[in-house]
Amino acid sequence: MGKNRLEAFSDGVIAIIITIMVLEMKVPHGDDMASLQPLIPVFVSYVLSFIYIAIYWNNHHHLMHAVQHVNGPILWANMHLLFWLSLTPFVTGWMGENHFHRVPVALYGVDLLMAGVAYFNLVRVLVKHHGKDSTLAKAIGNDYKGKVSVVAYASAIPLAFVNEWVALGIYFAVAALWFIPDSRIESRLQS
Amino acid sequence: MGKNRLEAFSDGVIAIIITIMVLEMKVPHGDDMASLQPLIPVFVSYVLSFIYIAIYWNNHHHLMHAVQHVNGPILWANMHLLFWLSLTPFVTGWMGENHFHRVPVALYGVDLLMAGVAYFNLVRVLVKHHGKDSTLAKAIGNDYKGKVSVVAYASAIPLAFVNEWVALGIYFAVAALWFIPDSRIESRLQS
Amino acid sequence: MGKNRLEAFSDGVIAIIITIMVLEMKVPHGDDMASLQPLIPVFVSYVLSFIYIAIYWNNHHHLMHAVQHVNGPILWANMHLLFWLSLTPFVTGWMGENHFHRVPVALYGVDLLMAGVAYFNLVRVLVKHHGKDSTLAKAIGNDYKGKVSVVAYASAIPLAFVNEWVALGIYFAVAALWFIPDSRIESRLQS
Amino acid sequence: MGKNRLEAFSDGVIAIIITIMVLEMKVPHGDDMASLQPLIPVFVSYVLSFIYIAIYWNNHHHLMHAVQHVNGPILWANMHLLFWLSLTPFVTGWMGENHFHRVPVALYGVDLLMAGVAYFNLVRVLVKHHGKDSTLAKAIGNDYKGKVSVVAYASAIPLAFVNEWVALGIYFAVAALWFIPDSRIESRLQS
Repeated sequence: MGKNRLEAFSDGVIAIIITIMVLEMKVPHGDDMASLQPLIPVFVSYVLSFIYIAIYWNNHHHLMHAVQHVNGPILWANMHLLFWLSLTPFVTGWMGENHFHRVPVALYGVDLLMAGVAYFNLVRVLVKHHGKDSTLAKAIGNDYKGKVSVVAYASAIPLAFVNEWVALGIYFAVAALWFIPDSRIESRLQS
Repeated sequence: MGKNRLEAFSDGVIAIIITIMVLEMKVPHGDDMASLQPLIPVFVSYVLSFIYIAIYWNNHHHLMHAVQHVNGPILWANMHLLFWLSLTPFVTGWMGENHFHRVPVALYGVDLLMAGVAYFNLVRVLVKHHGKDSTLAKAIGNDYKGKVSVVAYASAIPLAFVNEWVALGIYFAVAALWFIPDSRIESRLQS
Repeated sequence: MGKNRLEAFSDGVIAIIITIMVLEMKVPHGDDMASLQPLIPVFVSYVLSFIYIAIYWNNHHHLMHAVQHVNGPILWANMHLLFWLSLTPFVTGWMGENHFHRVPVALYGVDLLMAGVAYFNLVRVLVKHHGKDSTLAKAIGNDYKGKVSVVAYASAIPLAFVNEWVALGIYFAVAALWFIPDSRIESRLQS
Repeated sequence: MGKNRLEAFSDGVIAIIITIMVLEMKVPHGDDMASLQPLIPVFVSYVLSFIYIAIYWNNHHHLMHAVQHVNGPILWANMHLLFWLSLTPFVTGWMGENHFHRVPVALYGVDLLMAGVAYFNLVRVLVKHHGKDSTLAKAIGNDYKGKVSVVAYASAIPLAFVNEWVALGIYFAVAALWFIPDSRIESRLQS
């Protein structure tokens, strides 16, 4: 089965997620600078989520580039990833509207954690399908970034109840870690 | 006439449906766990609908894979399916907000039934166009899953007025039946 | 310049228009059949607009099929069409919420008229670019359906102030006229 | 790395932005012409933003046409552009709802300025990647339109606090400047 339509569908869903998030940023009623001020945390949340969704698209792009063919379990592993990404507008809106209170910050982390686990699982299913000696498997290697992210999110969730800014700091730090597209796959494909 | 643009358009519509459903999950005003509690039925409805739309995409993907060319009636049979799928965010939101009351649960079933009938009809129109001896026709076979689903939805609608949980159970059971992509087409194409 | 990306962009916009219209159908607060009743005109408006957008997609699909290449004026003629189509969710929502009062019904006609004129203009620009002896030009012929539609909408707008049901009847009648995809192009391409 | 999926993703995001803007145009409760009147500035803002997004799509289309391959920095420069474009529905809604008050008009200019800078930067990164002697670099030339636009937006922002109509006039004038797709690339590709 070809991978093209899977890529097209994923691109569509990710493009919609990244764009409809802006609808959670409600247009204020006032017309002065002061009426923008309560929107600052909403905007910061929006920026963080935009970067995260962009990272997922970039990594998905790179990952699928090395994929040869897909099957049923791969389709569902991909859907599972899209499910958690689709909740991003909701958790982003809740975190922003509540000015980074601890419970919304923790829930944001839960969504990141679940998406991270789902991505990790998608990689695993893809490697299983292509074989341990495939270009894909060699390019992925031991996937230390995927593992580090999942551990970081899992730590950030309880930490949010101690200090929400520490948790937010972790989210931004993991985003920075992923910011650079996965050079493992890129360099392997060129060699 | 080529099938590519039909696939691309259907992918676009399905990707948007699956993603805008999250907009029916309104961000709560409170910032504690208690304010998330009334959202639980909304979330369960969201999960059910996400699975259903994902199943339709998967099956549509498989179905179109075996299609060679399309004509006017096929375009309209496909639009008819997309129409009923497009109502999913509405019936999902209504069912979730009313904590699975019987009327919204029944209406959800009506939408599933109509989408099921529309899919069934799309298969029929495709088989008619490709001929009874085509790969498509042989792969579809007698389409027992399509028939079972339609019967199940048709029974669930009146049952929702007796006990809404029985109806919901049927919706989840039919989802489980379709969860695995249609192996009939896949195996036929490989042979 | 290739036509592929123009098709892809138009498909995307049309897919989004046809899908976000459902967001104008607000989930009611009640949980019984009575609370659905005020939604009936909204639903009828939705059905009418869904059919119209589907017709535009079908005809656009057929039209672009015969197109060889595009230029700047074609891109802008296409954007102009998409602009008027993009207002469909707004005029649909207004007409539905006001139970087919005369002003919203007339405004709906204005949007149909402008979209009809824009489509007519797109056809004209395409024919000009491809030449009077092109397959496209021959297939279009004298475009009587386009002319009839524009005249019908232009009559329906003042008629809406006399009797809104007559105007609505015209909208449904023109939809029926276009329901069948443009066989002129299809038959010409096959010969 | 191929440019196809980058184009497809950008098309998707731009198509969604241009279409969801209509959701900021809230359906009025009244059913007469008077209830449409407060929507006039919202509609004018919508038209301006629709033209801007259409221009960006047209120019992006032309720009990517001359691109041969993409890398990480190009992906991110493109995401950066999409970020500022994604804020268009918000700034459009705020400017329209406040009937072109100075602060929203200035903020609209800030978004245009940032998008202009991001586009300018995308061009720069693309030229760097393809080399100074590439078709792309020669076609872009000294990019006077990009420079003029950025200077115009930067002047319009403080001017909005003096007279908001002057700022709006500048926005419309720059839109007119870009209305015609970039003939530099087109003519260069044909030669």
